[in-house]
Amino acid sequence: MTEDKNTFNQELLFELLEKKEYEKFRLEFLDLHSYDQATFFLSLEEEQRVTLYHFLSPEEMATVFENVEQPEDNYQDVMAEMTPEYAASMLANMYVDDAVDVLNELDKDQVASYLTIMDKESATEIKELLHYEEYTAGSIMTTEFIAISSNQTVKSAMAILKREAPDAETIYYIYVVDEVERLVGVISLRDLIISDDDTMIAEVMSDRVVSVSVGEDQEEVARKMRDYNFLAMPVVDFQDHLLGIITVDDIVDVIDEEASDDYSKLAGVSDVDTLDYNPITSAKKRLPWLIILLFLGMMTASLIGRFESTLDQVPVLAAFIPLIAGMAGNTGTQALAVAVRGIAKGEMAQQSIIKILGRELGTGLITGSSSGIVATIMIYLWKGDFYVALLVGFSIFISLIIATLAGAVIPLLMHKVKIDPAVASGPFITTINDIISTLIYFGFATLFLSYFL
Amino acid sequence: MTEDKNTFNQELLFELLEKKEYEKFRLEFLDLHSYDQATFFLSLEEEQRVTLYHFLSPEEMATVFENVEQPEDNYQDVMAEMTPEYAASMLANMYVDDAVDVLNELDKDQVASYLTIMDKESATEIKELLHYEEYTAGSIMTTEFIAISSNQTVKSAMAILKREAPDAETIYYIYVVDEVERLVGVISLRDLIISDDDTMIAEVMSDRVVSVSVGEDQEEVARKMRDYNFLAMPVVDFQDHLLGIITVDDIVDVIDEEASDDYSKLAGVSDVDTLDYNPITSAKKRLPWLIILLFLGMMTASLIGRFESTLDQVPVLAAFIPLIAGMAGNTGTQALAVAVRGIAKGEMAQQSIIKILGRELGTGLITGSSSGIVATIMIYLWKGDFYVALLVGFSIFISLIIATLAGAVIPLLMHKVKIDPAVASGPFITTINDIISTLIYFGFATLFLSYFL
Repeated sequence: MTEDKNTFNQELLFELLEKKEYEKFRLEFLDLHSYDQATFFLSLEEEQRVTLYHFLSPEEMATVFENVEQPEDNYQDVMAEMTPEYAASMLANMYVDDAVDVLNELDKDQVASYLTIMDKESATEIKELLHYEEYTAGSIMTTEFIAISSNQTVKSAMAILKREAPDAETIYYIYVVDEVERLVGVISLRDLIISDDDTMIAEVMSDRVVSVSVGEDQEEVARKMRDYNFLAMPVVDFQDHLLGIITVDDIVDVIDEEASDDYSKLAGVSDVDTLDYNPITSAKKRLPWLIILLFLGMMTASLIGRFESTLDQVPVLAAFIPLIAGMAGNTGTQALAVAVRGIAKGEMAQQSIIKILGRELGTGLITGSSSGIVATIMIYLWKGDFYVALLVGFSIFISLIIATLAGAVIPLLMHKVKIDPAVASGPFITTINDIISTLIYFGFATLFLSYFL
Repeated sequence: MTEDKNTFNQELLFELLEKKEYEKFRLEFLDLHSYDQATFFLSLEEEQRVTLYHFLSPEEMATVFENVEQPEDNYQDVMAEMTPEYAASMLANMYVDDAVDVLNELDKDQVASYLTIMDKESATEIKELLHYEEYTAGSIMTTEFIAISSNQTVKSAMAILKREAPDAETIYYIYVVDEVERLVGVISLRDLIISDDDTMIAEVMSDRVVSVSVGEDQEEVARKMRDYNFLAMPVVDFQDHLLGIITVDDIVDVIDEEASDDYSKLAGVSDVDTLDYNPITSAKKRLPWLIILLFLGMMTASLIGRFESTLDQVPVLAAFIPLIAGMAGNTGTQALAVAVRGIAKGEMAQQSIIKILGRELGTGLITGSSSGIVATIMIYLWKGDFYVALLVGFSIFISLIIATLAGAVIPLLMHKVKIDPAVASGPFITTINDIISTLIYFGFATLFLSYFL
């Protein structure tokens, strides 16, 4: 029974659309949750979509479109299927932040023409938001919030709320502003409802408002919102003027995107790749790192080439190259992951770089010595050659310490100079550590060559 | 100005607490947002915490504790600092889902004793939630929701809402149940507010309720909530009885946790490691994978050992081991990351495993041939040895195809047999691909040995 309610009859909708059963289709379709409407929309072919535009008003289509998440290059085509008037009206009826998201994916010409046909008020609202930089608070906020003055009763505030509710993106927080639109307080609908009608807003509002500034990074906004458990967060300029709000549903998307992004970078997929792409698109997303790795790998190869005479004399050394490089590469990735997550979570702020390095040095010493000792014993038992065993073990020991430090230092330094540390992706750190560890291994081998002969 | 509002005067609070200025401290402290209260609490030493317990009532402390996120092993100690009566009363005053989170970290004895002292109603509520399995909808839901019958007016529903608001975790969705507590509808406070007082609930409620079943995986719940943009989601049993609700703030935490978890696993950190741990704890979280890698690396070493005579005759082969292994390892991690993200996002559901494999095979063919050709040309230009160049290039071609397939197939198969695919972590896939690629490389080298001599 739960199943029936959570899904919907896609087949029936297809059939009604194909048969152009206008009334029946609308009855079924408009009863769906807007996410399900969007899912249905995404499953249609062009011809069916065009029928749908005829079946739905621009207002109804706006609700569908608010929930549609297209691959970036698809918006252009889909929008071109509508008449310009229909498209402009649909955009005007969408929540302004969602409309801006769509417009950001279109040609400048197309955007300009929609804004010209659109009613003036909507066009002005949209234009205000269009110029904010991507990934800032400004780029994800909406201007459809409810703001009131503190100089009124709960009852009159409730009246304003009822009037403005249809247009506001959330009515669960009401923001209080002074005569020059500066944010001075906030009150939740919950507090409003349990307060007496005649109480003044100034008495029940909280004047300790947590806000974010319009240029703040969206990841930072997400962190604050998660920590404070807000459903919406006000966005202000440097003089505390209330510019907009960011709602929790957009923050959920931000958290998801940022996590996907960090994850992809750790794996060395240059851009977000998905199971939905065709092989050519996928290959394009993966090849850049592979080609960089190829060049870095050639460096490692030429490095090993320089130790050819050592290798000639002690060929058994070759067998342990992947072991040492692999362990150093992985240790570096571990340290990288902890540092990148730490930065993302804001743990960095509370600690000095020196303290973190001390911590990672300690960790490297423990993992390095443990792994080094185990390796020495294993190889000695297996090969019976104490010097080779000691060489491999000692190389692992030194490599792991350096790899741990490199894995932590590189993202921390990048963060200091304001580069996204996740760019120092897994394969990059891995290959750097491959090179360092190979150098250490063959360096020691050559230095103590006489023992192995 | 924004800065002042968003932070708080920690120094002043410390001072007031130290000087035992009861009145002034409470005035300052209780004015803070509960997240800031929790941040302050976490910065205290034991002695100061004990003073704090004397300064705050269990109700006030409950609000602080709802926002405290302790490392798992710390709850036990902190709770032991309070008198059992104080602790029990605090737990009873917390939102029941948060209280359960705390109790889940304590000894069974301690839990039992708190539940015995606690008022009966709270104890019963808590006990109901304590037995749900971790990571299911049941384990993160709360029972503090508002449920009404459809057989009443908007006005009477609003009266119920005002009465129950202080205890409910959210009042923004009101759930409608029939006479046997089965979920039949939902209405948002927004719709309630804009409806006329005399309208019947049955007329304004939505009877197409999206719900999750109590045993559903929390990651699945998070996905639904994100897709539908809900602020809360009802949890039902198999007969559609309403058991609880899950609020969006808990879902934000789930998304964050799951992302951290996947990320850590990709990097081969066995459990979530943070910059806050000491080196010994950190090393413990990282060593398991390193030791496994050591054993797998020994396998690679012994594999290369078997080709010793080939290596003896063509020592230059050793130089390209890290290159080939590194590229295969990374390709596998890329495919793994795409597959794991795809599974997490639910993209899997729409596609058959055969189709995904076809896609990955295509991707592997493109990345493999591109990288293979580039490698062949580079090595030929560098070393002037066509056969070695061809051997390396061809090995990269074959290795990348197999590595791509392995990276995608392993998590997909794990998902099919209901193992969390993120467990097939980066280092594991990398090492498997190290072994496979080394085997291919030396296999071909041995097969065509005569060409290299």
